[in-house]
Amino acid sequence: MAQRVGKRTLRMDTPVSIRSSAGVAGHKEAEGPVGADFDVTYTDDTLGKPSWEKSESALQYDAATLALAKAGVSPEDVGVMLAGDLLNQCIGSTFGLRSLGIPFLGQFGACSTMAQTMLLGALLVDTGCTDSALAVTSSHFCSAERQFRLPIEYGGQRAPTAQWTVTGAGAALIDRSGCGCLIKSVTIGKICDLQIQDVNNMGAAMAPAAADTITAFLRDSGSSPRDFDMILTGDLGFIGSDLLIDLMRQEGFDISDLHADCGKIIFDRERQDVHAGGSGCGCCGSVFCSHIMKRLRSGELKRILFVATGALMSPTSSQQGESIPGIAHLIELSC
Amino acid sequence: MAQRVGKRTLRMDTPVSIRSSAGVAGHKEAEGPVGADFDVTYTDDTLGKPSWEKSESALQYDAATLALAKAGVSPEDVGVMLAGDLLNQCIGSTFGLRSLGIPFLGQFGACSTMAQTMLLGALLVDTGCTDSALAVTSSHFCSAERQFRLPIEYGGQRAPTAQWTVTGAGAALIDRSGCGCLIKSVTIGKICDLQIQDVNNMGAAMAPAAADTITAFLRDSGSSPRDFDMILTGDLGFIGSDLLIDLMRQEGFDISDLHADCGKIIFDRERQDVHAGGSGCGCCGSVFCSHIMKRLRSGELKRILFVATGALMSPTSSQQGESIPGIAHLIELSC
Repeated sequence: MAQRVGKRTLRMDTPVSIRSSAGVAGHKEAEGPVGADFDVTYTDDTLGKPSWEKSESALQYDAATLALAKAGVSPEDVGVMLAGDLLNQCIGSTFGLRSLGIPFLGQFGACSTMAQTMLLGALLVDTGCTDSALAVTSSHFCSAERQFRLPIEYGGQRAPTAQWTVTGAGAALIDRSGCGCLIKSVTIGKICDLQIQDVNNMGAAMAPAAADTITAFLRDSGSSPRDFDMILTGDLGFIGSDLLIDLMRQEGFDISDLHADCGKIIFDRERQDVHAGGSGCGCCGSVFCSHIMKRLRSGELKRILFVATGALMSPTSSQQGESIPGIAHLIELSC
Repeated sequence: MAQRVGKRTLRMDTPVSIRSSAGVAGHKEAEGPVGADFDVTYTDDTLGKPSWEKSESALQYDAATLALAKAGVSPEDVGVMLAGDLLNQCIGSTFGLRSLGIPFLGQFGACSTMAQTMLLGALLVDTGCTDSALAVTSSHFCSAERQFRLPIEYGGQRAPTAQWTVTGAGAALIDRSGCGCLIKSVTIGKICDLQIQDVNNMGAAMAPAAADTITAFLRDSGSSPRDFDMILTGDLGFIGSDLLIDLMRQEGFDISDLHADCGKIIFDRERQDVHAGGSGCGCCGSVFCSHIMKRLRSGELKRILFVATGALMSPTSSQQGESIPGIAHLIELSC
């Protein structure tokens, strides 16, 4: 049974671990700096499907079934599945995972979904509510562009502060086996709204939420940034990452040489023309579940914080003049 | 720590209860058969806001703050907030609840959200992850019509099998105080897809999921429908309810004289021209959190099953020829 530490952090009481994980990604991501670490990459981002939404569902299916196959676990042996995505009414998850027949709790955390699903999965496993939980998320550049901005056929110009939605998915199978990488503790995020309204600068809207959650964890647990090999956010990109480092300094924590961001890692800024970096649920989903998990398993990384951030907005809320509230959920991992 | 019973049911180990709840609703709902039981009703469904989406957010805010006020609990004393709605990217919840400052886990279960949020809240409370959880959901006729069907100004004709999205919200504060009505156990739903494609007949799409979850609970717990005063679904409406009774009969259970449905309860079919009944997250949200909770607290109802159903589709998935997968989550209550 998870132990409460401070106000918002929960420490696992059992050896809750990420028994297996899988990250899949599109052709542009395959050409990026961590392309070789993805479990599967696709040369054709349609994945042979007749619509981008169906392609995104296929990404989730592939990531989920691959994570299960790696652990030798069949769907009927999984207790609960937690998944979400950016598409209206989370259809990437529903249609991607419906054939698995696993009890399902749909999650919406925008780009924080990979951390939110793993966080809830870890709590349900640690407390014995289930023996295993599957956490899944995805995004697709083409389904996101047409839903949130413009259909790609328009060839609209992108702002320098805009991020590039990743075509990819991540899945993690969580159980109490102690095999793989341990989830030590989690911190649930709060909605932070600093009245940022620029939909082409999501990093700025999400950075305050990341700073709030990381600060809450460090204070709750009495730990220092130095206790970790890496503080990994997803997906603040280049602009949001700089802001986070400034905000953390204001809180009295220097994370400048420990901080990494999935939105910065996934693309080569010079070579790939992605402006402020990668974004989308599938960005930290795919990077965490492949590249980062590989480095944790090899021992290159030993103790990290994974903090996924989400912008809780819709095109409708922005058209109605609303600001962009952010949220960030945190997972402490140790290998 | 919740005890597993059978394959999919979890029985609470502590006196997890709905300490307080609030249901708010619009003017049409106020004129319906249970109108007098809502905590607040509005004569102006805009709630004084400049857009229907903002009106829906205001419904959630009102229900949430009223539930807290009834218990004399301030937002800073609530451990976690679980909420979701039907709007794209769940903006009803984000913008309605952002000012409360409570750690937040966004949920997407379509119209099953009231049960999904209470289910997760009950598990987090029972296992000691938090002392209290706030479960909230909403829907608004006008925001739903323009997002899922047509702007109401078009005056489009409705199919006889179509349901009427309720303007309303429900909120329940869950803790271990044992005050109020006890949550005894929960069953997590599976995605059920019988390839129904008619978006004007959601009841038919959701009935198989309700039958699946109720059957799983009855088998897991070894109980019979006769052990309950009511098996309450939300929101199958008139057509889905008839189907559920047939499907349950095929499973060997006669629930015909125990079954009630929030979509049937909330409107007067003859007088209010709602065709197949009410629907939307706010239908069972508002009916359960006011009318049903009132009957439970008065002792008129002693032991019930609350089974909220959701249709996990979007206009995009339907336009692309997809079927409508359903899901249903169950909560066993006793007063």
